[in-house]
Amino acid sequence: MRENNVRNIWAKGGAVINGWLGIPSAVSAEAMAQAGWDSLTADLQHGLVDYQAAVGHFQAISTTQTTPFARVPWNEPGIIMKLLDAGAMGIICPMINSRAECEAFVGATRYAPQGYRSFGPTRAIWYNGADYYTHANKTVIASAMIETQKALDNLDEILSTPGLDAIYVGPADLSISLGKQPSGTPDDPVVVDAIKKICAAAKKHKVVPGIHCGSTAFAKQMIGFGFQFVTILADTALLTNAAKAAVSEMKGGTGSPAKGAGPY
Amino acid sequence: MRENNVRNIWAKGGAVINGWLGIPSAVSAEAMAQAGWDSLTADLQHGLVDYQAAVGHFQAISTTQTTPFARVPWNEPGIIMKLLDAGAMGIICPMINSRAECEAFVGATRYAPQGYRSFGPTRAIWYNGADYYTHANKTVIASAMIETQKALDNLDEILSTPGLDAIYVGPADLSISLGKQPSGTPDDPVVVDAIKKICAAAKKHKVVPGIHCGSTAFAKQMIGFGFQFVTILADTALLTNAAKAAVSEMKGGTGSPAKGAGPY
Amino acid sequence: MRENNVRNIWAKGGAVINGWLGIPSAVSAEAMAQAGWDSLTADLQHGLVDYQAAVGHFQAISTTQTTPFARVPWNEPGIIMKLLDAGAMGIICPMINSRAECEAFVGATRYAPQGYRSFGPTRAIWYNGADYYTHANKTVIASAMIETQKALDNLDEILSTPGLDAIYVGPADLSISLGKQPSGTPDDPVVVDAIKKICAAAKKHKVVPGIHCGSTAFAKQMIGFGFQFVTILADTALLTNAAKAAVSEMKGGTGSPAKGAGPY
Amino acid sequence: MRENNVRNIWAKGGAVINGWLGIPSAVSAEAMAQAGWDSLTADLQHGLVDYQAAVGHFQAISTTQTTPFARVPWNEPGIIMKLLDAGAMGIICPMINSRAECEAFVGATRYAPQGYRSFGPTRAIWYNGADYYTHANKTVIASAMIETQKALDNLDEILSTPGLDAIYVGPADLSISLGKQPSGTPDDPVVVDAIKKICAAAKKHKVVPGIHCGSTAFAKQMIGFGFQFVTILADTALLTNAAKAAVSEMKGGTGSPAKGAGPY
Amino acid sequence: MRENNVRNIWAKGGAVINGWLGIPSAVSAEAMAQAGWDSLTADLQHGLVDYQAAVGHFQAISTTQTTPFARVPWNEPGIIMKLLDAGAMGIICPMINSRAECEAFVGATRYAPQGYRSFGPTRAIWYNGADYYTHANKTVIASAMIETQKALDNLDEILSTPGLDAIYVGPADLSISLGKQPSGTPDDPVVVDAIKKICAAAKKHKVVPGIHCGSTAFAKQMIGFGFQFVTILADTALLTNAAKAAVSEMKGGTGSPAKGAGPY
Amino acid sequence: MRENNVRNIWAKGGAVINGWLGIPSAVSAEAMAQAGWDSLTADLQHGLVDYQAAVGHFQAISTTQTTPFARVPWNEPGIIMKLLDAGAMGIICPMINSRAECEAFVGATRYAPQGYRSFGPTRAIWYNGADYYTHANKTVIASAMIETQKALDNLDEILSTPGLDAIYVGPADLSISLGKQPSGTPDDPVVVDAIKKICAAAKKHKVVPGIHCGSTAFAKQMIGFGFQFVTILADTALLTNAAKAAVSEMKGGTGSPAKGAGPY
Repeated sequence: MRENNVRNIWAKGGAVINGWLGIPSAVSAEAMAQAGWDSLTADLQHGLVDYQAAVGHFQAISTTQTTPFARVPWNEPGIIMKLLDAGAMGIICPMINSRAECEAFVGATRYAPQGYRSFGPTRAIWYNGADYYTHANKTVIASAMIETQKALDNLDEILSTPGLDAIYVGPADLSISLGKQPSGTPDDPVVVDAIKKICAAAKKHKVVPGIHCGSTAFAKQMIGFGFQFVTILADTALLTNAAKAAVSEMKGGTGSPAKGAGPY
Repeated sequence: MRENNVRNIWAKGGAVINGWLGIPSAVSAEAMAQAGWDSLTADLQHGLVDYQAAVGHFQAISTTQTTPFARVPWNEPGIIMKLLDAGAMGIICPMINSRAECEAFVGATRYAPQGYRSFGPTRAIWYNGADYYTHANKTVIASAMIETQKALDNLDEILSTPGLDAIYVGPADLSISLGKQPSGTPDDPVVVDAIKKICAAAKKHKVVPGIHCGSTAFAKQMIGFGFQFVTILADTALLTNAAKAAVSEMKGGTGSPAKGAGPY
Repeated sequence: MRENNVRNIWAKGGAVINGWLGIPSAVSAEAMAQAGWDSLTADLQHGLVDYQAAVGHFQAISTTQTTPFARVPWNEPGIIMKLLDAGAMGIICPMINSRAECEAFVGATRYAPQGYRSFGPTRAIWYNGADYYTHANKTVIASAMIETQKALDNLDEILSTPGLDAIYVGPADLSISLGKQPSGTPDDPVVVDAIKKICAAAKKHKVVPGIHCGSTAFAKQMIGFGFQFVTILADTALLTNAAKAAVSEMKGGTGSPAKGAGPY
Repeated sequence: MRENNVRNIWAKGGAVINGWLGIPSAVSAEAMAQAGWDSLTADLQHGLVDYQAAVGHFQAISTTQTTPFARVPWNEPGIIMKLLDAGAMGIICPMINSRAECEAFVGATRYAPQGYRSFGPTRAIWYNGADYYTHANKTVIASAMIETQKALDNLDEILSTPGLDAIYVGPADLSISLGKQPSGTPDDPVVVDAIKKICAAAKKHKVVPGIHCGSTAFAKQMIGFGFQFVTILADTALLTNAAKAAVSEMKGGTGSPAKGAGPY
Repeated sequence: MRENNVRNIWAKGGAVINGWLGIPSAVSAEAMAQAGWDSLTADLQHGLVDYQAAVGHFQAISTTQTTPFARVPWNEPGIIMKLLDAGAMGIICPMINSRAECEAFVGATRYAPQGYRSFGPTRAIWYNGADYYTHANKTVIASAMIETQKALDNLDEILSTPGLDAIYVGPADLSISLGKQPSGTPDDPVVVDAIKKICAAAKKHKVVPGIHCGSTAFAKQMIGFGFQFVTILADTALLTNAAKAAVSEMKGGTGSPAKGAGPY
Repeated sequence: MRENNVRNIWAKGGAVINGWLGIPSAVSAEAMAQAGWDSLTADLQHGLVDYQAAVGHFQAISTTQTTPFARVPWNEPGIIMKLLDAGAMGIICPMINSRAECEAFVGATRYAPQGYRSFGPTRAIWYNGADYYTHANKTVIASAMIETQKALDNLDEILSTPGLDAIYVGPADLSISLGKQPSGTPDDPVVVDAIKKICAAAKKHKVVPGIHCGSTAFAKQMIGFGFQFVTILADTALLTNAAKAAVSEMKGGTGSPAKGAGPY
């Protein structure tokens, strides 16, 4: 089976530079895949992307050495298993707030007896080879989003879920849950402290910490905190920001990203 | 943020004339959007429409002043949140039969602390502007379908759910649940009485009553009952009926809609 | 091979009632196919339809007894042959203004020695059976559009093209070419006379006359003139008109089709 | 209403030969539908197929006499009802492990009072006729997958669920659950015994037994066991195997399916 | 009819800032349309875009005040007319090398007697209003690409084509034709001189000069030369460059666009 | 730039084993690409495939070492150039009957001064690298179909076209043109002699001979004749044949491909 390069980077103590796909097009995904990301995540939650678009994303990504991930819309076994069958090497699941939710999530990513994933890895075998079943449980990555006060309250229970490989902080939702304005680059001490706390707890439990980032500067700060999986914006934001910068420069502005470009 | 014109019509005591999209095409949606509906609802339940088609619907609707709504297939937070992120200004959720179901539904449409909607309004910001987060909770409409005997039994509990903006009667399902044949223009007294009861209860709870209608005549009757959101057929039915009428007229018939055209 | 029912109706002296598909969706096509049209034409010229959408149209039509036609964007052999391979039983070709253009068109619809159609009827065999090749040249219909002054000038030459089965009048383009406003229901004597002239000339040459019609009334008038293939509006127009009528009726209007609905 | 031919074959004691669609294309579905399968199942679980693709599948299937089925990704009422509204004549639901799960599944396929299916059979009426509602509950087939040890433990309870028409064995998942390697043609006695046990129990409860098969030989063996619904591979596997055989023969191999072709 | 804002900018002597769509997605088009371009051009020539994708582009653009254009793959009347019917307010046609080619191109964009465009502006009426026909000939823009030595040789003849509104320089093809390496920001004196010559000749003939630009710096230089329509890269390039810059910055590079990003 | 492996095989005197894509799905293309074909050709002529589907084909093929080709619907520069820009490493053009047609075809595949291909290799650079322009003219393959009596008459003139790399025999069309029934495995001496004549003439002109084949047996025979590029059926035929064989075996037949499977 093909190795999961994200695991390899983690094994060396490195940080994975992850891209984010919110445009439902295999062409934009291939444009993104030209950029040298370690991994690219099809975002079925907040991206304008559904399962069939994600299949196209995975095909486009598979023309390069980048590792395909997906974020699911919600903690539902059907879509988790479909994306793994389509070739995702890792799943990010939003809004994991309890041990039971985390167990349900991780179980959906593992064949019995470690979980309850159903067998039928149609495209996963095309991408990985005929021995996929033998290696899948220890290759595929399950990453639970920690992004609410409730998850903070249950942090150790969640992090000790058997088989959980990684967590992923959603800073905007975490900010809202902590009573702050949503931000992809939070600097409110309450939010920053929570992020640090999550990172430290993850490392204590041998779970790899990851985080969504609204800028390269924030991503570098987060790597400094110890995060080993950082996402830099989505293709939608990269594209709109680049276009706004070009228009702004032509129309007399400074060329920096125009106002109104969202941080996520 | 863009105003929700449906709320504006309601604030003036008016009735919203709503169209219904069951064809999975942005082109048919734009054809419908030419007609001057107050709102147009992408029907992901009984329409032949999925999430990706609904995104196309919303784009087509956004070329006009019509307000975009969606009906979800079921009370599941993943699809509710995806449609809001894609720009829906209102969500109609089928088969709400209890207070707990209603709370789960409404919560999925509201950011904390009013609910548990996850943040990432990618297209909603394109459509509404950068201040979407500030206004979303009080702008987006949550409308619960009342269409079973069980819902009638729990009507006051459902209607008193905090944050519930509107209810939507499904007359065909309500008819079946009450032991009658399904109809989009029911005249059985048992069903009509139930509809009246729902309308009155909604108004008592300051919840706006809406209803699906199989004809303009029935819709006018329902506005007379006090309903403030009426849907006139789906695009599939409008198209098939118009085509049958043309064929019937050419082949010697009367030109009225041919038999077999469904009422929903 | 499956019989071409359009030929059967013509053989009995009848008029074919043809529907028109401008929405690029197999679902709207199936909705249209429910209405009992004798034939349905995928419009790749002015419809919002390309080849791949037309394949979906043909599949949808094939669930019924209606006969599939296509109008090509222009007199180009590539797209004519592709649509025949996909199962079209007739091709309508716009803007045939000379004998040479007509010969090029008809030739693209016939295998040698009658023409130069290339062999590979992938879906045509699925739809018609394995003996497609044996019968195709005498089953498939070639219909040339007569819609300019130049075509009127060359009418007899065009109509005497060997293998030409039918002609199809585009009244809007014909009106423009004759210096009038475009109309799908022309009543200007200059245009009406030209239409009558085309019809008579076609019959003289044993070529079946057809025409695009903006209303059932006009279609009936045209059948009275001798036309044997009449199209009643497009799905886009039927849908928009029906929606405008419903909205108009609900908002206090008369319920007749709203202003602005196009004539084609 | 159109009869469900699968029920007719079962009524005569025959075995249904079922094909399997994992390619998200209406064209490949029509190619498959040319082959004379009794039924064809759109596989939304392990196939690379979502709802919108399945609608295309059903349209393609409807050009023939083959009966359309679907396998859903998971036991969720939204997708079950959507597929029925789109014209599926039977639903196969994975991973039914308890009586409660089975009741939830069967209920989603039946209108009240037998179940809680919501009314709006848009395409089902196009395919079946205007009297769909009258006959749907006794025509549509609900088939629950039995594929885990837990399901074996609860076999009688599951099989006695009112309204359950059939069960469907997933031999690969069953093998995993029983501690064996996944196989579409299992010969491990533990697995074979479990399959026999399921078949016998189903027959005892007047529930029709079906099974997924990795080869025609295995399918024949299963019919010998008493199974009355057998699936022979998926289109993905048929296509890859045929292509590998052709390449292998041209490149000097034996022409038998190349190694690496999956068993499902 | 809606005004063509590109004409308005030209009338004031300004330069149109044009964006370029090569990703076949209505979502990426809407992301681009958020950036405030004066116009956006669906590129059916070198973009990965066909007609059906362009319809989605136009719908997305129509949610904003940006003006929709298209570049066709080649000088063929079928696709030119289809894109106008779909709502394009201007057409850019590649490789116009002679007066006859230019007349054929311009004629395809105008109704008789100015040209031979066929009538059926399905979506153009939705976008522009019911009086489209009355104003179309003087509103729609025809822009011919000047990009070869042969076109330079025939420059005055081409530029004096009646009805030609604008020309568009393709600097990469022009460079190749002049024996130089292709570049989106040419600085070879031979190429620059040719560009200046084209610009001056266009102005002499009252034809608006436009040009494709590989950077904002080059675009500003070209406006300085007198060009009034400048395109800044394509969405594919903007996206890949932005992604490469982010990856480069995270992986230790400078953050400037990575090597290998194309100039077109 | 990536090497064109088809040229490498030819340079060694080998025969390329080519697969054929007629299903418009990137998933079926990836299934085909698993089989180890040397090259895979998206068939835009008789396949049910358009440009946008071919882009998906190329992406799927690019996940493997197979070389992507395309057959265009007709000898039109627009689609030839679009497919090259999308990454096709070779173009097969139907119905080349004269030297002038062949020159027009070859010219569309080469940048000036060898031809008139327009520059903008968007996806070709993603697939091949930034130095694509430098190597494209000598890497991309132009293959002209010889399939009529007229082409036989002009054979030497066609074969001496500068830059022509290969020819491709369409045996079915050739058979028709020679007055025989179409066949993908012709054994009529008139047709076989013509095939031999074409092969010999091509070799004399240093043009590589290729041919479409209806079976592996025929392909082996053709390699014996000297052909160096052989296609074995299309995915549509492979899939239908495999499905018919499975159904036939289950229903009591022999398991050999059922009657009615086309020869192309």
